[in-house]
Formats: sequence, C-alpha cells, structure tokens
Amino acid sequence: MNIILIEKQEIQGARVLLVDRRAKHLVKVLLVQPGDTVRIGIIDGPKGCGKVVALAARFPFQVELEVEFAADMPEKPPIDLLLALPRPIMLRRIFSQAAALGVGTIFITNAQRVEKSFWSATLLNEEEYRPHLLQGLEQAVDTRVPEVSVYDRFKPFIEDVLPGRMEGYSHLLIAHPNSPNTLKTVITEKPGRILLAVGPEGGWIDYEIDRFSECGFTAFSMGERILKVDTAVVALHGRLSERRESFS
Amino acid sequence: MNIILIEKQEIQGARVLLVDRRAKHLVKVLLVQPGDTVRIGIIDGPKGCGKVVALAARFPFQVELEVEFAADMPEKPPIDLLLALPRPIMLRRIFSQAAALGVGTIFITNAQRVEKSFWSATLLNEEEYRPHLLQGLEQAVDTRVPEVSVYDRFKPFIEDVLPGRMEGYSHLLIAHPNSPNTLKTVITEKPGRILLAVGPEGGWIDYEIDRFSECGFTAFSMGERILKVDTAVVALHGRLSERRESFS
Repeated sequence: MNIILIEKQEIQGARVLLVDRRAKHLVKVLLVQPGDTVRIGIIDGPKGCGKVVALAARFPFQVELEVEFAADMPEKPPIDLLLALPRPIMLRRIFSQAAALGVGTIFITNAQRVEKSFWSATLLNEEEYRPHLLQGLEQAVDTRVPEVSVYDRFKPFIEDVLPGRMEGYSHLLIAHPNSPNTLKTVITEKPGRILLAVGPEGGWIDYEIDRFSECGFTAFSMGERILKVDTAVVALHGRLSERRESFS
Repeated sequence: MNIILIEKQEIQGARVLLVDRRAKHLVKVLLVQPGDTVRIGIIDGPKGCGKVVALAARFPFQVELEVEFAADMPEKPPIDLLLALPRPIMLRRIFSQAAALGVGTIFITNAQRVEKSFWSATLLNEEEYRPHLLQGLEQAVDTRVPEVSVYDRFKPFIEDVLPGRMEGYSHLLIAHPNSPNTLKTVITEKPGRILLAVGPEGGWIDYEIDRFSECGFTAFSMGERILKVDTAVVALHGRLSERRESFS
C-alpha cells in the first residue's frame, strides 16, 4: 500500500478516521506515529497527504488523519483494454495489474473460445472486483479507478455498444498472433488514446477478428511466443507504453 | 501446453514413449488419435513434430510418438534478468512468465531489502524451480531453459561473480524509479544482449545502486508508478522488446 485511498465521503471537515485494513497497515507496516505524514488520495479524485493526529496502535486499530489535497487529479491513463472474459483467477490478477499499470477502461466481452462457466464468476460483480482494482492503485500510487464494462454477448457488444464507445481513440488495436503487423508498423505517429483488444486462451476465431476489423481495429502481433492472457496484457501494456514514449 | 517438451534421453531410436502428465495432456486435452501430429521439442534442443503411433486413452495414460526434429535449435533470448530475491510466490510466477517471454539467464542475488526468510525457500532448488521454467516454455513454444544462478551474498556476487559474466552485453541496465533516464535515452542504437536488473520490493539501497553503477550499469525509470516485482519484470520485458524492435 503505497498510498492510502479514501472515499470522498470519509472526509469530515479536514479529518479522516480510518478503522479498517488501512489503519492496520499504517500502524503495523508503516509504523506511523502522531505527527507523521502519509500519502493519501481520494478515489477518483486528487492525491494529497494526511498528517497522523491520533491513533490506536492495538486492535481495533484506528488512525485519524488531518488531510490536504492537490488541486488537480491524476489524468486518466491513455490505454483501455478490451478482453474476452478470462478465467476468473486470471481476471483477478489482470484487474490489479492493469490498475497498477494504468488503464482507463476495461471492456469485457464474450468470445467463442471463452468457457461458458466463466460467466458465473462472482468476480464479475463490482463489489467483488473493485477491491482488486483498488489494490492495484494502492500499489502504483494512483487514484483513478479503471471503469469496468461487462457484456456477456459478443454480437450485441460489437454491433451496438462498441461503435458508441470508439470516439476519442487514435488507435484501435487487436493482438493477434498471425498478423504480419507489429506495433512499430501500426503506431507510426504519436498516439492518443489506445484501445487494445486481447483474445481468450486459444485466440479469437476468424469471425470475431473480421468483426473487429469491420469496426476499424488493426491486428498486430508481438511475435511467435504464445502467452497466457495475464502475461500478454502486462507485456503489451509495456510495449504500448514504450512505443508511445518513443514519440515524446 | 503448446509444445510437448522431452529430454533427449527419452528418445529411443526415433520413438518417444510418454507416460506422465504429457501423455495425459495429449489424451485428455488435445484428444489426439493415432496418426495425429503434435508439436514437440527437445529441452535445450531443436523443435520438431511427433506422430502418434500408439496410445492408451485411459489411466495409466500412455502415448507413443514417432519423432522428427529440425536441424537447428531456437536462439537464446537476448534479455537476461538480475533479480534481488523476490518473495517465493512471486518468484514462482516470475520463473514461468520469464521463461514464457524468453530470457537467457536469471541471476538471483541478495539485497538489503530482501527478507532473510526468502532464502530458505525450497523454490531455490533446481528440482523445484525447473518445472516452472518448463511450464513457461511449454506455454510459449520454446525449448531453451533459462539458466538460473543464485548468489545469496550481494558483495561477493557483484565483486567476484558479475564482472566475469558481463561480457557480451551491449547494455547493463538497472530499473530504478528515481532515475531521470528512460529506455529511450539509454538504448539509442540497436542493442545486443541486455542484462536487466530489477530490485526488491522497496527498491535497491543507494549503496547497491552505486555498486551496480561502478560495474557499468545504467539506471533508468519507466515512470512514477510503483509496481510489484512480477508485474515490473513482465512490463519491462515488453518495453525492452519493443525498444529493441524499434531498431529493426
């Protein structure tokens, strides 16, 4: 936990009283004392700092902070993800890693090669996945929670939903092992927002690739190695970020 | 398992008899039948294909392959890793992900901020970590097992071992959050082999950074976000790979 995240409504005057795992972390891991200052942030708001004004160092842990915030909030990361629903254990890791790396929106949809049983995962409920997103933000010192949009049917998603969500992207990209393109050939000038689609284990089927391509997506490959989805998402995020920075 | 890996000594004439999890995978997941051809590879040797000549489709599973191999073996990946010993659960993931992404050698050493208890991890024994490396290779369709070298004392490692292992690298890099450099500023021409050092949770201490820098390492940062070691390794591998390909 490299930043303590709070909900806006937790602020009372200029004070915040923490009584949960955040208090425990401050007391047991960061070993704070009255007078110490810690990094805090309002979820989907600005970062700031909190001065410890009181604490209970034993269970039930309690830390009271006097808080102050920057005027501006962190920018939304310029990469969005579109995933064919992965296996829940993998999705959980993707949620926290994507939040840590920085993504704006995570679209999740169906695909031929998604196992039907994955759709019954409780992790698809916001109360289940939000803690994983927050963990990623706490790790990476960010406050912007990725938006998560889940669509359990591919056709309505790609025909009705996606077209309305595609404005503002400079690049619509789909990772596809057989493509002759690379990121270098598909991003040839400084990109704006990028939407990156990553398929299921086993890949998208041709029909799905065709539909993405009708929507304006460009396929690219990052080489011959076949990666698990969670590894691929992080590696691709790194590659996209590096490619972006090559123009700055 | 996107490739069936075998030890050289398993080949008898031009046949291989599989009786373990590989046989089960062929029978239960790939649903092979006599006459089918599957992708195989000799560990640290060439890839090839195996034709199913006989099988037992029930426990105890058994598959006999007639095998053939390419003349040349895959090249050693051009990126090596140097890690401060991570938490075992993280190291396990790094082993399989690094093998999947492709690394030549993984050096593991100590650092001030490595928890002492990590050194008692059974995972540091070859018989424990090798299966994780092989899993990564099976995923990524590679045969080259990363070499793993473990040194439990920092000073002897950096003074006596590392100098003898540094030939052949075009770049010695150390990821360090406070550096003003980026990969773009430290890799300005087509790189050869790269050795990438990634610190422990909490980072290298100044003394360690100084010693690396005396050894010829250049520090760089990939931004302000603080990442877990396993996420950082994969994201950095992606960035290095992208940066490398920008010169091709």
